[in-house]
Amino acid sequence: MAERLTIGLLGGTGPQGRGLALRMGLAGHRVLLGSRDPDRADAIVGDLLGGRDLPIEGRANADAAAEAEVVFLVFPYAGQADVLPDLAGPIGGKIVVDVINPLGWDEQGPYLLEVPEGSAAQQAAALLPEARVVAAFHHAAPKLLIDPDRQVETDILVVSDDPGAKGLVLELADQIPGCRGVDAGPLRLARQLEGFTAVIVGINRRHKIHSGLRITRLGDDKRRRLNAELRPAGTGQEGP
Amino acid sequence: MAERLTIGLLGGTGPQGRGLALRMGLAGHRVLLGSRDPDRADAIVGDLLGGRDLPIEGRANADAAAEAEVVFLVFPYAGQADVLPDLAGPIGGKIVVDVINPLGWDEQGPYLLEVPEGSAAQQAAALLPEARVVAAFHHAAPKLLIDPDRQVETDILVVSDDPGAKGLVLELADQIPGCRGVDAGPLRLARQLEGFTAVIVGINRRHKIHSGLRITRLGDDKRRRLNAELRPAGTGQEGP
Repeated sequence: MAERLTIGLLGGTGPQGRGLALRMGLAGHRVLLGSRDPDRADAIVGDLLGGRDLPIEGRANADAAAEAEVVFLVFPYAGQADVLPDLAGPIGGKIVVDVINPLGWDEQGPYLLEVPEGSAAQQAAALLPEARVVAAFHHAAPKLLIDPDRQVETDILVVSDDPGAKGLVLELADQIPGCRGVDAGPLRLARQLEGFTAVIVGINRRHKIHSGLRITRLGDDKRRRLNAELRPAGTGQEGP
Repeated sequence: MAERLTIGLLGGTGPQGRGLALRMGLAGHRVLLGSRDPDRADAIVGDLLGGRDLPIEGRANADAAAEAEVVFLVFPYAGQADVLPDLAGPIGGKIVVDVINPLGWDEQGPYLLEVPEGSAAQQAAALLPEARVVAAFHHAAPKLLIDPDRQVETDILVVSDDPGAKGLVLELADQIPGCRGVDAGPLRLARQLEGFTAVIVGINRRHKIHSGLRITRLGDDKRRRLNAELRPAGTGQEGP
């Protein structure tokens, strides 16, 4: 716990990427905000920092992937399958956190797109066969993430088939004020997390709020203990 | 609001059906707990009442469907497609609340089964073309429902394409202590609600709890007002 990581956010120029970059920077990590265009990444980071002294820097996606110890995927879903094959080399066997929600929108509101692999996260796992893929952070509202004075009121449900990777991401979730990392099972349940975002986005639109979700009756002591068991000291993070 | 309904719970002898029967009885409704075998339904109701004076009675499923104004489907998923065609006549154009979670279980824990129609609720809608189908109550823990001294700590997410039917079911949800009815969108999102149950069941097993979920930052005054708009007085419930 509490080690300082270098975190790369690939496709990180959208609201979710910027918000997660800010929160990971505030938690004390070094953050590389990636974009296809490194000049655009630099400009976004300048806006995001607004004079704050945080270790957040812009990078081209491939450079962010190569330098980072943990890689977040925050592309729009439509781009993931095109972009990931070229990043598989620099990503290698690192921990990859897929935050992507494959959602469509029509006159009935948001809905979950069909994904041949089952979920965006499983698609990432198929395209990055060496990576330790985790899905998480789907339900953290970008508008709350981006405002350092607000609590991000949601549980962060985390799924993965790699216990050590899951344990590390649960720790990162706990480092955002208002968030609790909750082990939500194996990677095959990623589709349930991605799909629930359609429910939350619809409620947000109806109520004009930025909601999240809490699992009820979940005691924090036991939660922390179970999460810590996933990652005995020194075994979860292999580093570059 | 607050009218007294006759509610039929078809396939209501399992934990979820018994728990919902008790809570709807406590809310002041007349409840018909249905089973294929009316003697079994009577025996279950006897156990459930345990001397309490509540208007809960056993019925054969078809009789419960015929007498009720609102019908809950609480069959195991595997039975729904076999059972519903014979009940389509007595159900007719009534409000139908599908509570079914099509879950499987293997060495990795709970998972969502494939349903050709997309979700159990959409399957019910296909088999009951005249009915006003709603999906709801997936995340209410049976162990809490069945204990009248406990709060059922969960939001009840309700989806339907019929605003009046949805409005009525949102009211029923609010009548269970600890529950809040939340409009979660159109019926096509039923799969997201059913699938999220796999996440909750897995968390329950891991933590040995009976959890539910809360939507955060959702104000109750606005929620009640929006819910009430779905059902202007007298228009939601056509009755028999």
